[in-house]
Amino acid sequence: MIRRGLLLILSSPSGAGKSTLSRRLMAWDRTMRFSISATTRAPRPGEEDGREYYFRSREQFESMVKSSEMLEHAEVFGNLYGSPRAPVQAAMEAGTDTVFDIDWQGGQQIKQAMRDDVVSVFILPPSIAELDRRLRSRGQDSDDVIAGRMAKSRDEISHWAEYDYVLVNEDLDQTFDQLIAILTAERLRRERQPQLSAFVRALNKEFEAR
Amino acid sequence: MIRRGLLLILSSPSGAGKSTLSRRLMAWDRTMRFSISATTRAPRPGEEDGREYYFRSREQFESMVKSSEMLEHAEVFGNLYGSPRAPVQAAMEAGTDTVFDIDWQGGQQIKQAMRDDVVSVFILPPSIAELDRRLRSRGQDSDDVIAGRMAKSRDEISHWAEYDYVLVNEDLDQTFDQLIAILTAERLRRERQPQLSAFVRALNKEFEAR
Repeated sequence: MIRRGLLLILSSPSGAGKSTLSRRLMAWDRTMRFSISATTRAPRPGEEDGREYYFRSREQFESMVKSSEMLEHAEVFGNLYGSPRAPVQAAMEAGTDTVFDIDWQGGQQIKQAMRDDVVSVFILPPSIAELDRRLRSRGQDSDDVIAGRMAKSRDEISHWAEYDYVLVNEDLDQTFDQLIAILTAERLRRERQPQLSAFVRALNKEFEAR
Repeated sequence: MIRRGLLLILSSPSGAGKSTLSRRLMAWDRTMRFSISATTRAPRPGEEDGREYYFRSREQFESMVKSSEMLEHAEVFGNLYGSPRAPVQAAMEAGTDTVFDIDWQGGQQIKQAMRDDVVSVFILPPSIAELDRRLRSRGQDSDDVIAGRMAKSRDEISHWAEYDYVLVNEDLDQTFDQLIAILTAERLRRERQPQLSAFVRALNKEFEAR
């Protein structure tokens, strides 16, 4: 029997390092699965169904919500986005962990649906000045867009206390090591190792055979 | 404000590597405290009060139990052994973690007394043949003594499912890395970082000052 896969939820304000960290995580352990969202928005040039998103019609999407096939979903600027349940469930049973790069609302819905299988991590910036600097260093957004991001960041940060673990991303390498430690530890939790029951039964047989 | 110290309980049958692991742990992080037991047995030559044990009279020990000054205690071969509460409490408040090398009964009593401050880890041997080999390789015990240890080991192992984390000590270096990951992760749990409330308040002040 194999280990039960877990769901790792990463949330943070934009610019706190979440995307970089989840990319490094996927490179560090290539058995992990990155959760791909479904959306009703049209594919952009170069986007592929099942790679960037699962592209679905509004009818398909709404019928999936109705039959509880979405772990979480939300409407953003007139488009629906959500996390399909089936691939997550299949991964868990195969002993594969799934990573969600998701905001607090999505994280909360997944937590409600999947309870003890969820490990949630919130990443805080070392300061707002630093968050601002990181957003601007991308060099492609207007002041208005950045102001909007900062307002959203403040809202996101206000939910930090709903997470299992909280990291302050001062140094990316250190924060990554902390994230790896959390993943390593959570995989070693007793309830995530159902294979141990058979292992201990084998130890007992060894005792009896002495 | 500082982090809240935690109580790390390590249990395992004799020969599974617990003592080696806790020694390496204390060397890895010298800020950690190893819990010293109190006992009513007489000091042996070379033993010092407060180093190997706190040596107490039966009257002193029983009065400490009565006034809840012991986190756990047990009588073994006519002598009382127990873990005094005061140094543990002081360490926790100072942000220092305490390591307990203790059997399942002691671990269970500490868990009942200290609840969420406790992180418990059970270490299993890869096989009983290997456990037997490790016990014999110490080369100083008679077959009778080893048989007694093995019976106690079987009893100890039967409590593996009461622990938060379970490690199978196949390779000492790997098991040690896993133990470090557990400690690192548990220190990052939100409820162990009360200092974060003030940190997020400072972030909010920065948002307001923009």
